[in-house]
Amino acid sequence: MPCVLMRVNWCETGRWRQGNKWIYSAAGTSEEESFLSGENRIAPELSDTVHKLPLPLRNMSSTDSRDLGRALCIITGASRGFGRTAAREMSRRMKPRSVLVLVARTGDDLRSLQAELAESEEGRAGLVAECVAADLGQAEGVESVVRASKERFCQDIDHIILVNNAASLGDVSRYTKSFTNMAEVNSYLSLNVSSCLCLTASILQAFPQRPGLRRTVINISSLCALKPFRSWGLYCTGKAARDMMFKVLAEEEPDLRVLNYSPGPLDTDMLTEARTRTVDPTLRKSFTDMFAQGQVLTCEQSCAKLMKLLLDDSYTSGDHVDIYDV
Amino acid sequence: MPCVLMRVNWCETGRWRQGNKWIYSAAGTSEEESFLSGENRIAPELSDTVHKLPLPLRNMSSTDSRDLGRALCIITGASRGFGRTAAREMSRRMKPRSVLVLVARTGDDLRSLQAELAESEEGRAGLVAECVAADLGQAEGVESVVRASKERFCQDIDHIILVNNAASLGDVSRYTKSFTNMAEVNSYLSLNVSSCLCLTASILQAFPQRPGLRRTVINISSLCALKPFRSWGLYCTGKAARDMMFKVLAEEEPDLRVLNYSPGPLDTDMLTEARTRTVDPTLRKSFTDMFAQGQVLTCEQSCAKLMKLLLDDSYTSGDHVDIYDV
Repeated sequence: MPCVLMRVNWCETGRWRQGNKWIYSAAGTSEEESFLSGENRIAPELSDTVHKLPLPLRNMSSTDSRDLGRALCIITGASRGFGRTAAREMSRRMKPRSVLVLVARTGDDLRSLQAELAESEEGRAGLVAECVAADLGQAEGVESVVRASKERFCQDIDHIILVNNAASLGDVSRYTKSFTNMAEVNSYLSLNVSSCLCLTASILQAFPQRPGLRRTVINISSLCALKPFRSWGLYCTGKAARDMMFKVLAEEEPDLRVLNYSPGPLDTDMLTEARTRTVDPTLRKSFTDMFAQGQVLTCEQSCAKLMKLLLDDSYTSGDHVDIYDV
Repeated sequence: MPCVLMRVNWCETGRWRQGNKWIYSAAGTSEEESFLSGENRIAPELSDTVHKLPLPLRNMSSTDSRDLGRALCIITGASRGFGRTAAREMSRRMKPRSVLVLVARTGDDLRSLQAELAESEEGRAGLVAECVAADLGQAEGVESVVRASKERFCQDIDHIILVNNAASLGDVSRYTKSFTNMAEVNSYLSLNVSSCLCLTASILQAFPQRPGLRRTVINISSLCALKPFRSWGLYCTGKAARDMMFKVLAEEEPDLRVLNYSPGPLDTDMLTEARTRTVDPTLRKSFTDMFAQGQVLTCEQSCAKLMKLLLDDSYTSGDHVDIYDV
């Protein structure tokens, strides 16, 4: 039986998971050694993200009747992975005649999701799902999402939710010193940072504050927003930029609910990319081991935690919240 | 006599400066009140950056004979402010026949600095200062800096130093929700993030690791890399992105020295812009008060601390180091 005691650095506070408990050390112990045993030792880069125990999905039983109101919910990157699951989970938590605006680059996968939602219990109860095939790296893509959202809005919608989920990993087959091409870096930042800011700003302008209207903006963040990962320079840079952008927004707009949610290591296409293309051998092995040992999470597990956060509505606006802290 | 007790938040640890001492509180006290008295009360946003007492420039006496070697030092944004002062200070700490590559958008101010350096003691001893008028927001600008640096390199140079100082404040006359124009945001990120990455990567490729060659990369950072400032969304986002980018680089390149240096509130054109254009009234007043009360630092004070860091060479590569921690 492998040891399940793992060390986590978080800011300057040492943190371990032992069984179901977190154990905290005093600040300033960051030089302490990782306590993973034998073959199950995971690289320190990932020790934060790896947990042997399944996450208990507490307070999210099927009898939980809380909802997100009659919502207009925009989800980017909705065709697959976390975004697709988020669309399903959101649909179950919104009141009848809510609207989902599903955004992705290609329309085919979106339309199959749209069909699935139409046939669901919520679809039959009047849920509307709109597909927007858009490249968010381009201004026109962002504009088409805003236009579709405005068209679908009606006066008795009482909650606007924007899930900024779309993201790309960047080329992890190279180290930072290889990024000499400005067009490549600009293109990455346009999709992962600028579009996220401009879509959020446009949606806030399109649906300004008014009595009775709740507004929630979610940034799908990552541990990479806080911690450098070798050969993941673009991804870490983009995620750190986004976290800060939403922190500023939260400071500026006290009526708005802003959440930087870090969904954990998920069993998605991005993880496949991470496992197969990451050039740093230690980090690549960690992803491979994590996957082989069944330590990744399903999108459903992570989405359940996001739903809990949204329904509890007790997080501090602007905070970075990790799935393992929910 | 105003009270000189000021509270500072740093991560989750409360920190005060009282007289010459820092006083630390336990983590989790971030709700405590600021202890600034009467008319000298500074907004919490800036409490970190405001200090009544002059910084002692310890260990940097005129008899300090340490140097940076025979260096090739590239400084972006060298025409004015911190970059211009850094050029002067660097020139005094480099061995004879070192090279400075001075970069800015317009050449006139660079040439006057070049003339000043040529007439200085170091200039007469063989210091070479090369001007590169370049727009770093464009790929061609970055390429011209790399080309000039390669042309000036010779085999007995033993230290490559890159000071990534060039930056713009962004439009602080508007809040985050006004940034709906992707071209504007992309342009900001190109100058402040992409160019910084691509210049650094290109310089590292142009001057690869070899025995006897030290390599140091400095990112001129800011408190804004760590803390959100209302109406400074672009600046905070860019600075957070840069800090993370250099943290990844430090992890990847153990032979490289990487420093994220936060130079403090400086008496520069950027502060004038901050005082006159910041839309958030509390933050604007803080800058105005800080300036009126003589609480800003000169570029010379801040550069002296940077020199101390470089000469001591004991910082942890990749760390964010604030001037008040030197």
